[in-house]
Amino acid sequence: MASSATLPTLHFSPKPSTDSSIGRSETCNLFLRFRNHDLVSRRSFSVSFDSLGLNRSGTPVLKFDRIRSKISASSAQVMEQSPRKTDSRVPTIVDVDLGDRSYPIYIGSGLLEEHDLLQRHVHGKRVLVVTNTTVAPLYLDKVINALTSGNPNVSVESVILPDGEKYKDMDTLMKVFDKAIESRLDRRCTFVALGGGVIGDMCGFAAAAFLRGVNFIQIPTTVMAQVDSSVGGKTGINHRLGKNLIGAFYQPQCVLIDTETLNTLPERELASGLAEVVKYGLIRDPEFFDWQEKNMQALLARDPSALAYAIKRSCENKAEVVSLDEKEGGLRATLNLGHTFGHVMAVDMSHRLGWIDDSIVKRVYNILQLAKLIPPHLKL
Amino acid sequence: MASSATLPTLHFSPKPSTDSSIGRSETCNLFLRFRNHDLVSRRSFSVSFDSLGLNRSGTPVLKFDRIRSKISASSAQVMEQSPRKTDSRVPTIVDVDLGDRSYPIYIGSGLLEEHDLLQRHVHGKRVLVVTNTTVAPLYLDKVINALTSGNPNVSVESVILPDGEKYKDMDTLMKVFDKAIESRLDRRCTFVALGGGVIGDMCGFAAAAFLRGVNFIQIPTTVMAQVDSSVGGKTGINHRLGKNLIGAFYQPQCVLIDTETLNTLPERELASGLAEVVKYGLIRDPEFFDWQEKNMQALLARDPSALAYAIKRSCENKAEVVSLDEKEGGLRATLNLGHTFGHVMAVDMSHRLGWIDDSIVKRVYNILQLAKLIPPHLKL
Repeated sequence: MASSATLPTLHFSPKPSTDSSIGRSETCNLFLRFRNHDLVSRRSFSVSFDSLGLNRSGTPVLKFDRIRSKISASSAQVMEQSPRKTDSRVPTIVDVDLGDRSYPIYIGSGLLEEHDLLQRHVHGKRVLVVTNTTVAPLYLDKVINALTSGNPNVSVESVILPDGEKYKDMDTLMKVFDKAIESRLDRRCTFVALGGGVIGDMCGFAAAAFLRGVNFIQIPTTVMAQVDSSVGGKTGINHRLGKNLIGAFYQPQCVLIDTETLNTLPERELASGLAEVVKYGLIRDPEFFDWQEKNMQALLARDPSALAYAIKRSCENKAEVVSLDEKEGGLRATLNLGHTFGHVMAVDMSHRLGWIDDSIVKRVYNILQLAKLIPPHLKL
Repeated sequence: MASSATLPTLHFSPKPSTDSSIGRSETCNLFLRFRNHDLVSRRSFSVSFDSLGLNRSGTPVLKFDRIRSKISASSAQVMEQSPRKTDSRVPTIVDVDLGDRSYPIYIGSGLLEEHDLLQRHVHGKRVLVVTNTTVAPLYLDKVINALTSGNPNVSVESVILPDGEKYKDMDTLMKVFDKAIESRLDRRCTFVALGGGVIGDMCGFAAAAFLRGVNFIQIPTTVMAQVDSSVGGKTGINHRLGKNLIGAFYQPQCVLIDTETLNTLPERELASGLAEVVKYGLIRDPEFFDWQEKNMQALLARDPSALAYAIKRSCENKAEVVSLDEKEGGLRATLNLGHTFGHVMAVDMSHRLGWIDDSIVKRVYNILQLAKLIPPHLKL
């Protein structure tokens, strides 16, 4: 077995791009390629050279279909099947390790009924819940109840924004500041983001900038937000010339993921979130990719255990990358796979450049079709 | 001599307020009072009990007129006279100690001619200078020259905002983002704030939020900005309901203070800045207050050496407070003396509450009259 220090790993090339590229997507390089990279995590290194089936003297092309569960050291258990049912009210906890800005991600079914879980992370006695017109009728009362139940000293305000990416702008953000200021909130308040990625990004940036920074909590209600955008502290809004150009790196007190909120998620949003789950398999976790190939039907059927496992494993991957590279000096840019022009085009381009072989392309097309992210008739 | 650990010190009471108070100035407590306080700095403790002339068994009233230069341990040299002339092009350096966010403040006459000083702190090859319609005609060309002289790889953009506190708002801030984005600046750029407090606060917040944070440099051109607002990382804008309600704690790469820029400063702005200088004497540095009483005429006459010393000593005080309490958990709030309703009213209220005696009130009135901050006919 080769020394782990010399192992090639999945990485972007020739240099990391960002989701903050300004009108120059033509120069983005969000393709899959193998490179040695100092920043790559232990988990990536733990994939043995042998199991990858690489030709060490030849071109660095991964035979992805030979990746198996030979991984010798990984913090996550290999799941050939969906995990056994356990008490869903006991949350799985994934820790995001960022020194004095570390925080837990709680994952489980029915966690919004576990009032103490939320209340222990509320600072001060004033809370502002930021949500939107779609989520508010479904979960706002439940969250207010979770915040105030048995806790009469806490008062909760809420601001309900219009739903959609097109409202992720400064004008809408100002409505959050208006509400916070009109409610006379002070520095000891807590903001709560209740919704998908747009709400999390906007509420997080509002919390970062209100009085130069107040506490906040993420309660993501979409798969996309649960496995990606709510974790890692990237917050911000769009500018008319580009996405996420104005914002802050700002970490929450905790992320609370109640998988029951996925029961009301539209099919299209579910598939969109699964694209982010697939991403983690592609960029750094082949055993998780294996698991996804076996369990995609369960995920689409919203099997609670399968969803909980996929979310946990995704959060572990994201937490590890963020811990290694919080401000996106390099490695973190791998998390942007698919964010510029989609997995299919990224894989296609990687293949054209000779960085990945046919078998990987086939498997990626296959899993994206399983996840209903691309139509079944799309040809390789 | 009493143990330094039990010394009373100038401090605010009953609790620190902030300049972010929202429409509740009636509850602010920006008065002078003596209290022991764990957070107080060594320099404050170094004022001996004896020299303060306190009645240890009586009420804690400071006889301010007995404070002399008996201070036994201070990082700053006691100046009975203005300091001797030295090579003004050699900057005085005050370090702001904030771990990996530490930075130098350079103070001196003609420093904008010392191109290397500025250039060594520029990251990347793209610079955006943020300034206003008053300062741009005076110093923009000089700063662009300082940035590019002998350094042809650097390109400089500039955005010139309208001058005045009333433009410290989100609409005007968006002009900075517009310019940065239209110029296709990326994360490796540097923002430069050229102007007074409004420009520094806005440019700093724009730098904090553009692409979630880029480097920036402060070049303050008013006494107020040089001794207070450019140091310490408080950035932000006003909301229609209150000042500085939206912003960030964000530290610059360096602060470059060219005291020659004060030659064009209007009288009124000079006096306004001296109010901040007086503040440091009042809140924590009695020997500096002594010095000010002797040198106020030289400061008003814009004597370069006197100004340089006053700026240096002010920055040392500010740097020390900021190092101890960057995010204003407590001690830093002392820096807000006078920001809510002015030194005179603060002193008057402190006196009415029995916290300071007549002699202090008299000396504060006297120095504010010397600095032309209150009219000579104002009665005690």
